[in-house]
Amino acid sequence: MHDDSATDAPHTEQPTDPASNPDEIDETDGDDFTVTPYDVAGTVDYDRLLEQFGADRLTDEQVARFPDHPMLRRRVFYAGRDADRYLAAAEAGETHSIVTGIGPSGPMHLGHVLVFYLARRLQEETGAHVYIPLSDDEKFYAKDLSFEEIERATRSNLRDLLAVGFDPERTRIVVDRLDADVVYPQAARVATDITQSTVDATYGDPDNVGLSFYPAVQATHLLLPQLVHGRHPTLVPIAVDQDPHVRVCRDVAAKERFDVDKPGALLGKFLPALDGPGKMSSSSDAPAIELTDDRGTVREKIMRHAHSGGRVDIDDHREHGGDPSVDVAYQYLHTFFEPDDQRVEELATDYRSGELLTGELKEIAAERIGAFLAEHRERRDALGDLETELDPYRLSEEERTRLGPTVLG
Amino acid sequence: MHDDSATDAPHTEQPTDPASNPDEIDETDGDDFTVTPYDVAGTVDYDRLLEQFGADRLTDEQVARFPDHPMLRRRVFYAGRDADRYLAAAEAGETHSIVTGIGPSGPMHLGHVLVFYLARRLQEETGAHVYIPLSDDEKFYAKDLSFEEIERATRSNLRDLLAVGFDPERTRIVVDRLDADVVYPQAARVATDITQSTVDATYGDPDNVGLSFYPAVQATHLLLPQLVHGRHPTLVPIAVDQDPHVRVCRDVAAKERFDVDKPGALLGKFLPALDGPGKMSSSSDAPAIELTDDRGTVREKIMRHAHSGGRVDIDDHREHGGDPSVDVAYQYLHTFFEPDDQRVEELATDYRSGELLTGELKEIAAERIGAFLAEHRERRDALGDLETELDPYRLSEEERTRLGPTVLG
Repeated sequence: MHDDSATDAPHTEQPTDPASNPDEIDETDGDDFTVTPYDVAGTVDYDRLLEQFGADRLTDEQVARFPDHPMLRRRVFYAGRDADRYLAAAEAGETHSIVTGIGPSGPMHLGHVLVFYLARRLQEETGAHVYIPLSDDEKFYAKDLSFEEIERATRSNLRDLLAVGFDPERTRIVVDRLDADVVYPQAARVATDITQSTVDATYGDPDNVGLSFYPAVQATHLLLPQLVHGRHPTLVPIAVDQDPHVRVCRDVAAKERFDVDKPGALLGKFLPALDGPGKMSSSSDAPAIELTDDRGTVREKIMRHAHSGGRVDIDDHREHGGDPSVDVAYQYLHTFFEPDDQRVEELATDYRSGELLTGELKEIAAERIGAFLAEHRERRDALGDLETELDPYRLSEEERTRLGPTVLG
Repeated sequence: MHDDSATDAPHTEQPTDPASNPDEIDETDGDDFTVTPYDVAGTVDYDRLLEQFGADRLTDEQVARFPDHPMLRRRVFYAGRDADRYLAAAEAGETHSIVTGIGPSGPMHLGHVLVFYLARRLQEETGAHVYIPLSDDEKFYAKDLSFEEIERATRSNLRDLLAVGFDPERTRIVVDRLDADVVYPQAARVATDITQSTVDATYGDPDNVGLSFYPAVQATHLLLPQLVHGRHPTLVPIAVDQDPHVRVCRDVAAKERFDVDKPGALLGKFLPALDGPGKMSSSSDAPAIELTDDRGTVREKIMRHAHSGGRVDIDDHREHGGDPSVDVAYQYLHTFFEPDDQRVEELATDYRSGELLTGELKEIAAERIGAFLAEHRERRDALGDLETELDPYRLSEEERTRLGPTVLG
């Protein structure tokens, strides 16, 4: 079994950035990397992380039991906690759910949205409930942003989430402050089971009391499907650096007074920033690809900023070939955007042999990503008034009553 | 000006126990007392407390400007912060408000209810808005109580609050978990201005992250009237041991981004427990007088448990007289229950001279308190369904919209 003690990581980022790095590539070079929810530095050894965190590498058999998806087939999501329980419920047609959220601090990037498409796929194939928390409170606690900025980001993110095309019957989108009538009473219930010293040890000393409390809100997010639908297996697809959040929640869930299963996890690699390894985020130097970027912008960003694994001049490249393991355009294609496994393999082979040039590889990536975003944008643009569109995805009155306090009987 | 730095006190108890101790009595005996929101020990020097806390003794002129009330006339409420601003607004017919709440951990006691009657009086005379927060969250964080127990206490306390007879037009009763839709978003706003180290220094190391966060909720309570009605003078009548809560909120209110006045305070002495000095509370050994006690029960509790300032036998008492300064029956009469100042003075004189016996003094106190509670109970019993009765006192939809997040525009 796993060691679920939550003892080594920071505060804040939501499960937002699950991601890439070709599976066959070995990024290991010893001890020279740091992974916490606040910081990813150095070259990440994804296997050593599993040892540190006490999670299990997905087996071929487990991957085969999941609905087919490039990010699982290619082990972008490469490890898990309690994946078998989730799979058993999905196979038996019993209640099972996915929780994956976002912290609304700005427009959504390519690196944010992929996990939601994975969740939609799991929902389509096995009827998973999908719960999507937006931590607008935490973004206020952790970032130097005003509520106006956070609310603008929230509205924008909500449109992107709605554009993914979840089934409203089986999907709940919860915004912490907007749905505080249920989020706070449930978080209050969880809060007494999280000590300040657990928070300090897991996330470092918090700057303010909002950050002290937020782990209780986050744990509430992960328990929400079970609080609504009763005890059942839950899976949290999450970038591996966010695993400490899951462990804090699993400790809470283990308390006897909660009639819940410990939430399981599906741990992913990071989609690299355009300029190279590390997470794609607004804190990177290169611009991120935003979901609202048109084909021309996507192409320009990739052409100009995508870190290349190719040689400095064409002759050299033709002779010695490139390295797909550090080529960002290749990594994007491998993560998700080239759906055909054989084609991905050919691209790697041709790039290594020097037959495929960096510019050509970038053109392919730009085309695939541009096409994906064009479809996403089309669905986003077709949305009407946000409040109306969101309504079927919000907790129903009956669900709110079930989750809310019973002060007045 | 005051020193508003919040640096020396504990977590938790709500502004619930403002109270007594005859004014003319000097309880000072040097350094031998402790007063924090968690603990009152030794004999309290109320003047030294003011020095420690940096608050001002009420002047005769200030007391004369307040609506006439025994607890002010007799300096049960004996000190304040920014009382002049409040009085000026009340005199000018401008918006002014009172905030006084309760932590629902059990039935309300005599010591809890007096401040609400004072608030009603201020409301009747000058039209003060009265905001009454119930911290059902904090009681869960701080006490070993289940939500079922806390909700039972909340329902009971709400009935007592409704029985006081506030004007529903100018009174708002807010229950943290029940009104989390506005309480949490506002507390989130406040939370970034309260550091964990302020909480640690003010309240001691919190046991859980709920207690870390609660000071943000408490500060929200004190700011609520201004958040609803705009900037205006607010007065928080509060037992002097609860003053650190006010100072934490005053520090928050001083931040530029809040368009609010620092809440003022009206600081009170403790209503002693039946068995002697210290606060009346369920943690005392003697039973507390509960608001539901009938005349017989009140009489029996006072006769049996009220600490006497009299002599051991009647002859001795007749010869040497008793000490009203430590006689709990006398202190109750002085605090509030004997409205006639001259009569109170006579009782003290007669007790000191030995003319009035302890048993006689207790009979007088039992009669007055019994009569007060009978009237309170009559109004309480006349209440209908709690939800219906509470409704006019709850935040209106329009007020909720004003206080809630504007995520959806």
